[in-house]
Amino acid sequence: MSIQMVGFDADDTLWKSQDYFDAAQAEFESIIGQYIDLSVAGVQDHLLQVEKQNIAVFGYGAKGMMLSMMESAIEMTEGRITSSDIRRILDLGKGVLQHPVELLPGIEEAVDEVSRYFPIVLITKGDLFHQEAKVKATPLSKRFKRIEIVSEKDPQTYRRLFGEFAVAPSEFMMIGNSLKSDIEPILAIGGWGVHVPYHTTWAHETVDGIDESLLSNFRTATNASEIPRKVRELADLARPS
Amino acid sequence: MSIQMVGFDADDTLWKSQDYFDAAQAEFESIIGQYIDLSVAGVQDHLLQVEKQNIAVFGYGAKGMMLSMMESAIEMTEGRITSSDIRRILDLGKGVLQHPVELLPGIEEAVDEVSRYFPIVLITKGDLFHQEAKVKATPLSKRFKRIEIVSEKDPQTYRRLFGEFAVAPSEFMMIGNSLKSDIEPILAIGGWGVHVPYHTTWAHETVDGIDESLLSNFRTATNASEIPRKVRELADLARPS
Repeated sequence: MSIQMVGFDADDTLWKSQDYFDAAQAEFESIIGQYIDLSVAGVQDHLLQVEKQNIAVFGYGAKGMMLSMMESAIEMTEGRITSSDIRRILDLGKGVLQHPVELLPGIEEAVDEVSRYFPIVLITKGDLFHQEAKVKATPLSKRFKRIEIVSEKDPQTYRRLFGEFAVAPSEFMMIGNSLKSDIEPILAIGGWGVHVPYHTTWAHETVDGIDESLLSNFRTATNASEIPRKVRELADLARPS
Repeated sequence: MSIQMVGFDADDTLWKSQDYFDAAQAEFESIIGQYIDLSVAGVQDHLLQVEKQNIAVFGYGAKGMMLSMMESAIEMTEGRITSSDIRRILDLGKGVLQHPVELLPGIEEAVDEVSRYFPIVLITKGDLFHQEAKVKATPLSKRFKRIEIVSEKDPQTYRRLFGEFAVAPSEFMMIGNSLKSDIEPILAIGGWGVHVPYHTTWAHETVDGIDESLLSNFRTATNASEIPRKVRELADLARPS
């Protein structure tokens, strides 16, 4: 039993993502602000609620965000929003889908270093088309033996992937910025995880903390440059003595 | 060299799909008809044009359709469309995403029969989340060794999948309703194809015909019940004599 494969998350682990969504959300609020008093309205809560209901229908990603924003805007303005402002929301979403891919500082070197010792794969959640376009736009894509875009990062999905990769959970280490998607489900099935927090996290991705009994298989890297060292630390622990 | 694996397409091969999009399109036209004279307006052409431009940003699927419909509606009505009619377009799209999965007549038996002789996989294009939800809703899902949802069905994508499946193109047969997505790219790289035409085809999926030099690796099944026989015919041809 030792680490046979290392997985990387993509959004906010390899490249900037949530910042674009946050900027779109701020722009959305300024559009809504033309119609209702933002200081009392709870715009963020309303949108979050609509998104939560729609995730079961739309899944994750910018297209679902645009559609939820439109639905929320029509409801919050009680239908007063003009079609040209709805068009602005549409263009906001297109902007999120088309922004250039911006790698995070130090990540290219970290991926290179880890790939020297382990086969690496990319496991990312969200919109298939958008994620593929982003992967293709980076010089990193060739490093990854497999690129898996999944609709949900839960233990069941990871188990299916490990079956396809022919590795046991105890032989797999995941690196990512989301405790909920990248770390918790991996630890829960006996794998290893390196958390690399990002300065902003989507409201639907927050968790209270990792179960204490699982902490031995878990490390935090404060930035990308620390990833290789944390990977080695856990890999040493995983090696049979 | 003989057939080692058979792939099935999903939309309009296993279950109804285009009918729902066609119905949404008819409903879309009736919404637009409140604002402009449908007899002169070229509503279908305008929507098709907007969809074509947006496919590079949105990819395939119902969410992209909804967004393109909204954009097309705002443009065609020169901004006169009300937010409640935009909401109707949104609900149209949600309807397409949430319709119950309706298997095509005879397909369950055909899939069963083919799976008795060959390992079978499902290869479908479009929205990851929607396709996964549909696959999960059918009794067929357990038959398939692998379920691959891809953003584009081109020779490059099929080659990547064959690498993952560890089969050569000449050992693979694809079954589907789209000449453009399921048959042509497979024949082009030396594989085998059984076309099962559906009564309606998305405008972006039509082709003029198959190159004559490739016809020997190709059969047409007029309905699902004919699939197993056509598969056997091609498999016999593929077997070394």
